[in-house]
Amino acid sequence: MIPHPRRVRVVEVGPRDGLQNEAAVLSLDDKVEFVTRLAACGFSQIEAGAFVREDRVPQMAGTDTLFRRLSGGRGPVLSALVPNRHGMERALACGAAEVAVFTAATDAFARHNINMTVAESLVRFRDVLAMAAQHGRRVRAYVSVAWWDPYTGRVSSDAARRVAVALAEMGCYEIALSDTIGAATPDEVAALIEQVGREIPSTRLAVHLHDTRGTALANVLAALAAGVGTVDAACGGLGGCPYAPGASGNLATEDLVYMLHGMGAETGIDLDAVAATSRWIGGVIGRTLPGRYLSAGRPAIHPSTDA
Amino acid sequence: MIPHPRRVRVVEVGPRDGLQNEAAVLSLDDKVEFVTRLAACGFSQIEAGAFVREDRVPQMAGTDTLFRRLSGGRGPVLSALVPNRHGMERALACGAAEVAVFTAATDAFARHNINMTVAESLVRFRDVLAMAAQHGRRVRAYVSVAWWDPYTGRVSSDAARRVAVALAEMGCYEIALSDTIGAATPDEVAALIEQVGREIPSTRLAVHLHDTRGTALANVLAALAAGVGTVDAACGGLGGCPYAPGASGNLATEDLVYMLHGMGAETGIDLDAVAATSRWIGGVIGRTLPGRYLSAGRPAIHPSTDA
Repeated sequence: MIPHPRRVRVVEVGPRDGLQNEAAVLSLDDKVEFVTRLAACGFSQIEAGAFVREDRVPQMAGTDTLFRRLSGGRGPVLSALVPNRHGMERALACGAAEVAVFTAATDAFARHNINMTVAESLVRFRDVLAMAAQHGRRVRAYVSVAWWDPYTGRVSSDAARRVAVALAEMGCYEIALSDTIGAATPDEVAALIEQVGREIPSTRLAVHLHDTRGTALANVLAALAAGVGTVDAACGGLGGCPYAPGASGNLATEDLVYMLHGMGAETGIDLDAVAATSRWIGGVIGRTLPGRYLSAGRPAIHPSTDA
Repeated sequence: MIPHPRRVRVVEVGPRDGLQNEAAVLSLDDKVEFVTRLAACGFSQIEAGAFVREDRVPQMAGTDTLFRRLSGGRGPVLSALVPNRHGMERALACGAAEVAVFTAATDAFARHNINMTVAESLVRFRDVLAMAAQHGRRVRAYVSVAWWDPYTGRVSSDAARRVAVALAEMGCYEIALSDTIGAATPDEVAALIEQVGREIPSTRLAVHLHDTRGTALANVLAALAAGVGTVDAACGGLGGCPYAPGASGNLATEDLVYMLHGMGAETGIDLDAVAATSRWIGGVIGRTLPGRYLSAGRPAIHPSTDA
């Protein structure tokens, strides 16, 4: 059997990477209810928003108020993206417990997505990490397009490794290797993790996978076998609205948790509660979410003529 | 990295397990065109029909004529389901090169699906296998609900193993362990293959997986790691029409082949040709097929703001 950890930490990114890539823009009350419902599902961590420019990413507007309304209580760690010093100031001002910085494995993607080179982004993160250290906040990091880039194709594992190691050495506690366009296959995932794992412990790595070509769960299996213990997912496969070019659905939390529980891995998550939350948020944004477990549910008692 | 064979044999089952579970009933000309298009994609084997009662399974009507029109030329092996001696007579009469018998790991499923117990089905197959041997035809076997049964839930690997081994000992050259309701997870798949593999070589096993809960490709990975070299799939994820209770989509051939090629495994299959065939058959039956690669295509050059 393929080895895997006994316990897997699932980071729910639906309120951020999910909603950010939906056409619908939620009200603040709906966002608060969404995160509150997710918190009740048993996640230990939820990425709840992004301290980015509201004129550029209207889906993430109100993250400050969201955190003011939700932070401080019991429940999961709520984290948010911060692109720069100003975002970090906002995060600190509203009591965000944890933040995440994001860059890419390629300059081509970084230029398109954050309008700077990878090296420039790392310089900018120094301030963020210094402020976080000063205020006792943990910083997570995303490496987008760690395997495939929509502009340059296949990304060398050397390029992805260098960025991941640089972020770890700067003090990011966890590096989420991201298959942004959902094009990676299991050997590619394993190869990068093994390469990065020679320089930093694989327990400091997470995988953030999109299910664009159906390979996300197979890639999770490869990542777990290579020593990764943290996987990002978005409830129902939220994100990647079919009308937005270049967007692609996140791995659905339910599909991930169904597989993990079937393998005897503990997550602490109530699968049916996640599915109920996905149905609710699907109703709010007005579309049926693409997650497969969400459509199928638990293996049920019914007639079949299938071979 | 997770080990896998250098070459994987993909058996295309769209014309049988796919079409059999679609509401639409194709004309004979469309079926001939479908199999002809698939044959041009490079498959070494296609399950093209079923010699079953046409009043009960109208989707499989005309299999005799289909085989008469398509058999004997070059190209892939065309096989068909045969439930009994009469089906085998029809298969021989129209020149089918290979046949497949089907039973289940549980009596509950066998009773619902083929109206007899598993033991009764094995007795019935003796005639089929004797006729096949006499005429030099190979016989494949399906074990439905090898992991999960919609009537009794989780199936013991001991029950599935016994049926698989019995079929192998009767002379079936290959046993396709089937996750009929798409509920299995990777450790369950690996465990059964390892258990069966103690009695018959794992090279005589295939996996036939449905992607109902998104786990099919992860299960393929587990099967390949356990020594299986043959995987069934249906182009576009054909089958499991959402309107048919109990039906669930086959693993999409494109998703499988995309992953295999990404892992450096050879299949001999032209991925783009399969996708084109899926788009064509989707048009014929009047629905967009659910395969993920089919929607996404190759990793492309386009703008994205996704993390």
